[in-house]
Amino acid sequence: MKTFLDKFYRLFKEKNTILCVGLDPALPKQRDDNVIPSNYIEGHDENETRLNFCLDIIDKVADYAIAVKLNEQYMFGISMNQHQEIADYLKRRDLLSIYDCKLGDIAESAESKIFWINKAGYDAITSFVQPGNLEQMIHFAHSCSPTIGIIAITLMSNPEARKYFLESKFGSSPLCYEIANDVRKCDADGCVVGSTKHILAETIKKIRSIIGNEKIILFPGIGAQKGDIEKTVRFGGSNIIINVGRKIIYSNNPEEVAKEYSIKFNEIKSTR
Amino acid sequence: MKTFLDKFYRLFKEKNTILCVGLDPALPKQRDDNVIPSNYIEGHDENETRLNFCLDIIDKVADYAIAVKLNEQYMFGISMNQHQEIADYLKRRDLLSIYDCKLGDIAESAESKIFWINKAGYDAITSFVQPGNLEQMIHFAHSCSPTIGIIAITLMSNPEARKYFLESKFGSSPLCYEIANDVRKCDADGCVVGSTKHILAETIKKIRSIIGNEKIILFPGIGAQKGDIEKTVRFGGSNIIINVGRKIIYSNNPEEVAKEYSIKFNEIKSTR
Repeated sequence: MKTFLDKFYRLFKEKNTILCVGLDPALPKQRDDNVIPSNYIEGHDENETRLNFCLDIIDKVADYAIAVKLNEQYMFGISMNQHQEIADYLKRRDLLSIYDCKLGDIAESAESKIFWINKAGYDAITSFVQPGNLEQMIHFAHSCSPTIGIIAITLMSNPEARKYFLESKFGSSPLCYEIANDVRKCDADGCVVGSTKHILAETIKKIRSIIGNEKIILFPGIGAQKGDIEKTVRFGGSNIIINVGRKIIYSNNPEEVAKEYSIKFNEIKSTR
Repeated sequence: MKTFLDKFYRLFKEKNTILCVGLDPALPKQRDDNVIPSNYIEGHDENETRLNFCLDIIDKVADYAIAVKLNEQYMFGISMNQHQEIADYLKRRDLLSIYDCKLGDIAESAESKIFWINKAGYDAITSFVQPGNLEQMIHFAHSCSPTIGIIAITLMSNPEARKYFLESKFGSSPLCYEIANDVRKCDADGCVVGSTKHILAETIKKIRSIIGNEKIILFPGIGAQKGDIEKTVRFGGSNIIINVGRKIIYSNNPEEVAKEYSIKFNEIKSTR
């Protein structure tokens, strides 16, 4: 059976980039900065606006990225057809699609969400491990064909996440390490680990040592959240992807900025 | 400003019921049992099927319930218009609408989801506290008019949740109590607390003592998950609502079963 990780390894080899582009399509009425440009708004409803913006960005960054992470908190009301259009287009442009929905729920509900994700055609989702049923979730996701990847939120990028991910403990172990243990034991496909200031190089190394070398670490927090690229590339291990969202998609030249980030990541990798 | 809790208190007085009906509209192709009856399927697309089923159930249970909890894991691809139709209908039938999306994310993303929830017209959402930024999320939700209620997942109903909610600790305190502390400090509108076997009466009493008497405790797990009604009603305090999903919505007579649950809850309440 074709697995999500197989697809990741193939693209990783072929595309020579570890950039993941984060799509969080915000309408101008949602906030002041980092919003979809006005030329996407006129004459279109809110769904068309968000869809067209996403497809355009995908088109512009496709050559410089290995994956696109779609943020569910910005996709409310998007239709199944539109989800399928996005997922199809990502496939055609040889990009992994990671639907960032932070799924954490009782088994029946998790199964339902995975049914819909499978129908939409996304390659992977992010998930919360705290409900404690990661094994069941992975069973549902890996029963799909091709398998849907489960990338477990192991240590979040926002500084307030310290409390429940680093300072809270299971036995004597900070929760993020216990989550990493679950990722290994249940054979999830990867971890989400922040790259921001409160996350030490030591912590990243330790998480990698727990989960082993094969799984993906997805690092959010680079760009607008000011995460540290060096730290992630030097200590994250081989199979990493680095997410940059707002700094690319809301720049005047998403193609150029995506290219710059991709080159920068590879430069640091080459001196590792 | 009109708040979610004001609306809850008013309905709580007027309707004399603590039943919350859980809507998880599953298509027959999703699973074997507990699915939308076939008469909703023919001649309709998947969204119409789910919408019509939801509206019919709402119609049938409206007189016996105070709230309806919509499970996001079953709503993928539902359009904004359809969300608004559901939320509007719930308002017209004097039911609180709780959108069970378990929101937990960095501030910008949480703000975006709340923007869309507000537009859809739902009264409240469920949320994960683990990202550590509950205060920010509540700020966004309580800045809406009327305010959107935040009901924080304090202790989940599935037995595997023991690990990260009961056995994990912040300092010497089980995480569920620390989450309850956050609920009090940040002034969330309530807690979700399971009613199933692994959750002791003592634990429910303790959570209530931490959050105070005014906030809501929403108890899932009654019915299909075999939670204990007596325990929740006796030890949950005054402002509780009890969710029953599958046992009502997939029964042959949702109206009658809703009525029976509502009466049963009130009987136990009256002997408290």
